[in-house]
Amino acid sequence: MEADHGCMSMFFYLLLFFSLFLNLFFLFPSAFQQLILRPGELTWTKEASTVAETVAAITCSGHGLAFVDGVPGTESLPVCECNTCYGGDDCSVFDLDCFADVESGDPMFLEPYWKKHASISAVVISGWHRMSYRTDNFITLIELENHIRLLHSHVGNAIIDDKFIVFGVGSMQLINALVYALSSETSTPATVVAAVPYYNSYKSQTLMFDSKSYDWKGDAWNLSDTIPTNLVIEFVTCPNNPDGQLNKPVLNGSSVIYDHAYYWPHYTAIQAPADGDAMLFTMSKVSGHAGSRFGWALIRSPSVYEKVLEYVNLNSIGTSHESNLRMLTIIKAMLAEKEEEPVDDIFGFGKKIMSERWKRLNDIVSLTKRFSLQSLDPLSCTYFNTQIDPSPAYGWLKCEMEEDEDCYAVLKEGGILSRPGSHYGDSGRYTRLSLLKGDDDFQMLLLRLSNIVGVNVLEQEYTGSDSDKIV
Amino acid sequence: MEADHGCMSMFFYLLLFFSLFLNLFFLFPSAFQQLILRPGELTWTKEASTVAETVAAITCSGHGLAFVDGVPGTESLPVCECNTCYGGDDCSVFDLDCFADVESGDPMFLEPYWKKHASISAVVISGWHRMSYRTDNFITLIELENHIRLLHSHVGNAIIDDKFIVFGVGSMQLINALVYALSSETSTPATVVAAVPYYNSYKSQTLMFDSKSYDWKGDAWNLSDTIPTNLVIEFVTCPNNPDGQLNKPVLNGSSVIYDHAYYWPHYTAIQAPADGDAMLFTMSKVSGHAGSRFGWALIRSPSVYEKVLEYVNLNSIGTSHESNLRMLTIIKAMLAEKEEEPVDDIFGFGKKIMSERWKRLNDIVSLTKRFSLQSLDPLSCTYFNTQIDPSPAYGWLKCEMEEDEDCYAVLKEGGILSRPGSHYGDSGRYTRLSLLKGDDDFQMLLLRLSNIVGVNVLEQEYTGSDSDKIV
Repeated sequence: MEADHGCMSMFFYLLLFFSLFLNLFFLFPSAFQQLILRPGELTWTKEASTVAETVAAITCSGHGLAFVDGVPGTESLPVCECNTCYGGDDCSVFDLDCFADVESGDPMFLEPYWKKHASISAVVISGWHRMSYRTDNFITLIELENHIRLLHSHVGNAIIDDKFIVFGVGSMQLINALVYALSSETSTPATVVAAVPYYNSYKSQTLMFDSKSYDWKGDAWNLSDTIPTNLVIEFVTCPNNPDGQLNKPVLNGSSVIYDHAYYWPHYTAIQAPADGDAMLFTMSKVSGHAGSRFGWALIRSPSVYEKVLEYVNLNSIGTSHESNLRMLTIIKAMLAEKEEEPVDDIFGFGKKIMSERWKRLNDIVSLTKRFSLQSLDPLSCTYFNTQIDPSPAYGWLKCEMEEDEDCYAVLKEGGILSRPGSHYGDSGRYTRLSLLKGDDDFQMLLLRLSNIVGVNVLEQEYTGSDSDKIV
Repeated sequence: MEADHGCMSMFFYLLLFFSLFLNLFFLFPSAFQQLILRPGELTWTKEASTVAETVAAITCSGHGLAFVDGVPGTESLPVCECNTCYGGDDCSVFDLDCFADVESGDPMFLEPYWKKHASISAVVISGWHRMSYRTDNFITLIELENHIRLLHSHVGNAIIDDKFIVFGVGSMQLINALVYALSSETSTPATVVAAVPYYNSYKSQTLMFDSKSYDWKGDAWNLSDTIPTNLVIEFVTCPNNPDGQLNKPVLNGSSVIYDHAYYWPHYTAIQAPADGDAMLFTMSKVSGHAGSRFGWALIRSPSVYEKVLEYVNLNSIGTSHESNLRMLTIIKAMLAEKEEEPVDDIFGFGKKIMSERWKRLNDIVSLTKRFSLQSLDPLSCTYFNTQIDPSPAYGWLKCEMEEDEDCYAVLKEGGILSRPGSHYGDSGRYTRLSLLKGDDDFQMLLLRLSNIVGVNVLEQEYTGSDSDKIV
């Protein structure tokens, strides 16, 4: 018995010894780290990750965001940058007298989507990542180009097999790049036009660069009865900004630059893959990453492609490699969902918000004869494989009363900042309401517009966008 | 005694119990995680961090790099992208017949610096980071602007108190932005010039944009005896690309755009802070991050500033927000060392490499009468607080033999790719050798040049750049 007792004691002492040792090991791992391999333990990325997660945990009351590169506030943490109409240290103070700002086309309605997909969309960039001017393919990036092609194939909105791809600092940079490329193929100055109402940057860029090789001539309809002797370059925006119409060229024989910024299932039915000779796309309106300044052109002709590439190389030596890496990550994240039902992916998410907003806006406008909105029909969509309701990026509002000649001013009087029709080459009777900004901006629009129309928006039912928790 | 023994046993069993419990806690933390706070545990950044560290661990034999956004190879890991003259899956195969490529101004000599400062220079970007077109200050970023000012103050290379800052997609974008801004202040077309030898992009951009408002007129010296009636815009590159000279304007009364891309202690002595009305800088040559496409202009006049801002906004709606965040991180990392001796910071690191390379190049060229290099004197430097040897970014090589009229061709015949003098508006007797690329490229240059000159480079002593281990 005594021997047994001794054995038991020995067993317990050994157990205690190993147990204590194990605890020492866990409590002071650094003392042992030379002895063992610790797979998965992070080293040089840990500090930056901790900063990113700490800043992401600042909630700003759901009416703003703190960014890692924001201005430092208390305890060196970046301050909250509040949405319009919200203020205070934590963006909790609502300013009831504030204007509804629906002027810009800032695609913030997709921000909650990326908060919901935090892990798959995060990017870590090392200090030595792609420091060279050159990537693995001059000023494009093989994997990013491949994934842009995969994205188009998946959505079915463009034929890419016979097209070259050029990256741009937003599709913005590629507007003048394409005009430069197309006009360099003739000796007399080319004429640049777009049908009213047109996106203003075609005009403002062409006027600013003020080239000897091309001139801005305004509304394409003005040329429709003449037979020009020189090259005519026509911008065709489809769906159109501002009015969401599926525009086609209005001139015969023009060189067409198709701007398909909004040809994604968020904003319109995909009816057939686009197949223009020169087509512009931008990540701003696909994933909502406007600040990344990344767009691309799909180009059929090798000579036009070479000229556009030359332009981007001389204008800015290509696009930011940080932006390239992040856009690749974002496209991979969007494509990772392609086995899901389309209704659950980013296009379903975006479509749901945009069509609900369009419906809500129409519900209010239909209560008055003072205003009208553009007419858009339900269309059959190959992506969702069903007929879908309209979900345009913008409302193209018309003031119908004879005295309301300046529709922008009428709205401003009612507390709404919009973008006037004259900006689009059109009558002042029109003004553009942006529907793709954040939820706070859209709610303010409803509130202000209801006041103008004379209804109480609070009586209306609205489901709003989903929560923006980081998951 | 028996009571004591009982107490001991009880103590012993309690200790064993708690120790075992602690073992369980450490071994199966997930079972306890709802009960406790675990500060510092990473969540949504972990996956991206793991990917970044895994890819960083691919060594590519020290003659290449794998990047997170590279083409996937075996096991889905990105392939090695090898330096010039190296090949094979792991870049271990040296091609002895390969050309020394010292054509471009790719600032890869700083890559090892960032590998040594991996933790402080890493960046994590969330999926929802600054998606908007706008930052906290239109198309600049308050913290980045502040840190650019701190960097200039620290180095003492520019007076910033009375200057506005505009960000550009590299200083490349700002070349034409400044020409646009300055020429818009007059009604007759402006004349754009630069003294030979000049950086080619002033010419190629001005010709490409082909504006009605200004014309490229080549060498500034051609205008030095005339009194122009219109506005003359003169580019003054200081230190000059290609020859490293501290250029001054050659024309009286011209509007000067100073390009100070190389006015950093890596490349030249800082003698006094620059104070031009319009000055260009680029991160490419400060930190080596050419691929980030980030530069800035310091501008005295409010009206010129407004015009440059308008240009960048219309050309590309500003710069990539990913690039902005990373550049802020990089500048913070550079400034974090300012308490150290300057010799140990990035400028000391860069200076050491560049002055050694300049010395080695001169050692070889001095052995022959066939070639000569530009003459540069030691100068007193306020940053290092001592007299320093020359350390230019480029060798401006002249072929001295009567028959060697095409110096570029002479070098190419000897296996060296350089950039011909004609590219800089100068005689074909000159050609530019880039000294700021990676160590492999510089070693190949020495090897090929030694062969041409007829010495054995292996007999020469060279310390080379520091190891490029990630620490």
